[in-house]
Amino acid sequence: MEDTRQTGNLALTRVEQVMQALRERIASRALAVGARVPSIRTMSEQLGVSKSTVVEAYERLVAEGTLIARRGSGFFVAGHALPGANGTYGAFAARGLPGPRFDREIDPLWLTRQSLETDARALRPGCGWLPASWLPQDAVRRALRAIARDPHAQLTDYASPLGLPALRQQLAWRLAQHGVEAAPEQIVLTDGGSQALDLLCRFLLEPGDTVVVDDPCYFNFQALLRVHRVKVVSVPYTPAGPDLAAFERVLAEHRPRLYVTNSAIHNPTGATLAPTVAHRLLKLAEEHNLLIVEDDIFADFETDPAPRLAAFDGLARVVAIGSFSKTMTAAARCGYIAARADWIEPLVDLKLSVSFGNGELAADLVQRLLVDGTYRRYLDGLRAKLADAMGDTLRRLASAGVTAWTRPQAGMLLWAQLPDGLDAARVAREALAHGVVLAPGNVFSVSRNAGSFLRFNVSQCNRPKVYETLQRAMERATEAKAEPA
Amino acid sequence: MEDTRQTGNLALTRVEQVMQALRERIASRALAVGARVPSIRTMSEQLGVSKSTVVEAYERLVAEGTLIARRGSGFFVAGHALPGANGTYGAFAARGLPGPRFDREIDPLWLTRQSLETDARALRPGCGWLPASWLPQDAVRRALRAIARDPHAQLTDYASPLGLPALRQQLAWRLAQHGVEAAPEQIVLTDGGSQALDLLCRFLLEPGDTVVVDDPCYFNFQALLRVHRVKVVSVPYTPAGPDLAAFERVLAEHRPRLYVTNSAIHNPTGATLAPTVAHRLLKLAEEHNLLIVEDDIFADFETDPAPRLAAFDGLARVVAIGSFSKTMTAAARCGYIAARADWIEPLVDLKLSVSFGNGELAADLVQRLLVDGTYRRYLDGLRAKLADAMGDTLRRLASAGVTAWTRPQAGMLLWAQLPDGLDAARVAREALAHGVVLAPGNVFSVSRNAGSFLRFNVSQCNRPKVYETLQRAMERATEAKAEPA
Repeated sequence: MEDTRQTGNLALTRVEQVMQALRERIASRALAVGARVPSIRTMSEQLGVSKSTVVEAYERLVAEGTLIARRGSGFFVAGHALPGANGTYGAFAARGLPGPRFDREIDPLWLTRQSLETDARALRPGCGWLPASWLPQDAVRRALRAIARDPHAQLTDYASPLGLPALRQQLAWRLAQHGVEAAPEQIVLTDGGSQALDLLCRFLLEPGDTVVVDDPCYFNFQALLRVHRVKVVSVPYTPAGPDLAAFERVLAEHRPRLYVTNSAIHNPTGATLAPTVAHRLLKLAEEHNLLIVEDDIFADFETDPAPRLAAFDGLARVVAIGSFSKTMTAAARCGYIAARADWIEPLVDLKLSVSFGNGELAADLVQRLLVDGTYRRYLDGLRAKLADAMGDTLRRLASAGVTAWTRPQAGMLLWAQLPDGLDAARVAREALAHGVVLAPGNVFSVSRNAGSFLRFNVSQCNRPKVYETLQRAMERATEAKAEPA
Repeated sequence: MEDTRQTGNLALTRVEQVMQALRERIASRALAVGARVPSIRTMSEQLGVSKSTVVEAYERLVAEGTLIARRGSGFFVAGHALPGANGTYGAFAARGLPGPRFDREIDPLWLTRQSLETDARALRPGCGWLPASWLPQDAVRRALRAIARDPHAQLTDYASPLGLPALRQQLAWRLAQHGVEAAPEQIVLTDGGSQALDLLCRFLLEPGDTVVVDDPCYFNFQALLRVHRVKVVSVPYTPAGPDLAAFERVLAEHRPRLYVTNSAIHNPTGATLAPTVAHRLLKLAEEHNLLIVEDDIFADFETDPAPRLAAFDGLARVVAIGSFSKTMTAAARCGYIAARADWIEPLVDLKLSVSFGNGELAADLVQRLLVDGTYRRYLDGLRAKLADAMGDTLRRLASAGVTAWTRPQAGMLLWAQLPDGLDAARVAREALAHGVVLAPGNVFSVSRNAGSFLRFNVSQCNRPKVYETLQRAMERATEAKAEPA
């Protein structure tokens, strides 16, 4: 069997071409979860390769968890929940093996796992959050002490169905600062931003619906949408927002039900939505009866507030979600949904059904930090620190020959391209072996056209080792390209 | 239009008979979510009632959110996520109206909402948790202070994919006390027990699968399973566990994929699974390739440990879930899943996709309370207090003519029957108007055959007003039965 580690994406072997062809059919949903894949003979004829090549490709797709083999009946597309009829949990067991970890580098969950799991001494320029030392730990400590001291603190009971009224009032006020008019009764607290999006997907989508995301987009949108068994289509993102001509074509062709985006500071590009794009986007959404979830998780990083779709739209077809995991604490899970009034009751029923309510302690903690002036002062300091780190990272990457796609106005995210079409997945794999977690572009790209991009988190880029390791990994990737496959 | 408030369940009006017939077809999935219901003429002929009776029944089913009316095309079964094609969110909007609250008394979410929402002065003998004053508030306070003081406490970061190792070790040790062998690597932390069950349903079930529950069962199992679009069938529960003959018939007839139960202390009956029943149940499960989720949320209430299905089975086809919401705090959401080793990796992928991990602060809090001897001492005191409250409640209910179905060995739950076939929903509605939240039996019953039962929580039953209000509500219900419908 050939060694996949010696293969760059510009020189795919025949086996890899077959694997790639299959993966693309699955990504485009030409092959749905659970579907039988073409027989070995059919595939061999279709692609003009030998049967043994197809056999090896299918076996490797089974090993990485993309396909399931069922004895006597062929190969099938694995899903998140496809336990076999006889208790053989093939797709899942395969993922549990120590081997295939390095085959998962374009799986959105790979980055999550690497960022969360890798040993504490590793550097994480690819991860999506601030270092603990940049977060307001002392303010969190003070708030915990205040809760412990407060005789009226609610320490043991379930939250009310919508969640802590004082926090919903704070959130209504904060949303109003961005022009989003939402009464506290239109705000539902959740255990984090991902849960907020998950609830909305359950509420708004049916399996088989189509959802639009940006290309590139926050990688976990893809993982989450996959759980909902929807078809995902993508629209190229420009430094001013989604490409509107492409957006219109997608609307006409795919009739999607929902668009999921970050508009204030876009993940992974750090770009900001322009007001004219926002306006035209909403017009298109109206014409095509498209719903929008606007994930405003980076709101507090902004220096000059960008337009919000939810503000232009008045929460008619746009739902705003957010959380404090990025700027305050991710250890206390607290997010929110702000939506039109007539959606609240059924959304809350759904929330109670699947979680019995959000955590009141986390909500209380966030609420105390929001009313505490120290959070505002902390944010001022944080923004200045991030601006410095952004400038520094841009300079250091430029020296390494890595080009920023756009210069973000604020925040921690920077989207940058490797020179000479180098394979970012290859570079990331190399860097990981030396204790540096990078974020390869295709993790964020539904169309997989960001193979030479990396997402950097400037708050995690202040150590020389990041650039030394990146440089060395780029050299190795360049050498590998020169080698015969 | 007739007044529903004057109707007992033994004297259904024609309109209510039609409503009931429709609800039963929906509950049995003869009519699936989204399906068109029979036309008014067909239904009128089938049931031998006038068309105007059917019209009124359908209108009332729309008002309560069971059906959606689509102009020009008839009536359809509402789902949890069936927004109309033109942005008309009929089923949801209908639920948001102030009117139909009193029509929801056999909707499992009704009880959740009433318990969580009703004004703080209300008494809640029907709710499923301890009063705050019975919970270890001082221990929670101390643990919060300890976290705030601990320089190594993890106050701001995301949790690792499985969740806090120290808590998973504690849980492995605690499970071993009940004979359940689970390594810490087989334990996944969640934001509460409901999230644990929700993740497992996503992992194990496909829409259209069949799931068995006990009759009666914890009401939120029904609400949660409905979200997963599965068919729910039920098996009568006896004081020793599920009725095995009925269980076998259900297995043969419906070929269910999963059985969800509480076995240590059963909700709502307070009954305990007998070892022989547990053993025969597992044999049936093996023969029919049935998976089992055993929700062990009441573990710490037990005085004499009951058998665990997960212990007998060795986590082959049984998954154990639990949480500390009932005995410690529900304000910090923390639950767990203990499952076979080869399920863990895909379960964690699923958890990361939909929540990006559990709350570390809640896990840390629970962990500190578990290792703190005060929790063990608190539990000893709690069990004694509950035993007293159980005796007291049994005596007072007996004086009121309300009969216990079985005498629970431990815990807070008591399942009891009203005299003379009185309608518990009617009694609960009456009591609610006087500030007392009762739990009518049919909220817990898939077959709706528990119309004269109530679930009591003995920890919430120590005020004379509970019994006075119950007595008065029973009198009103008796009078209403005597009135012509």
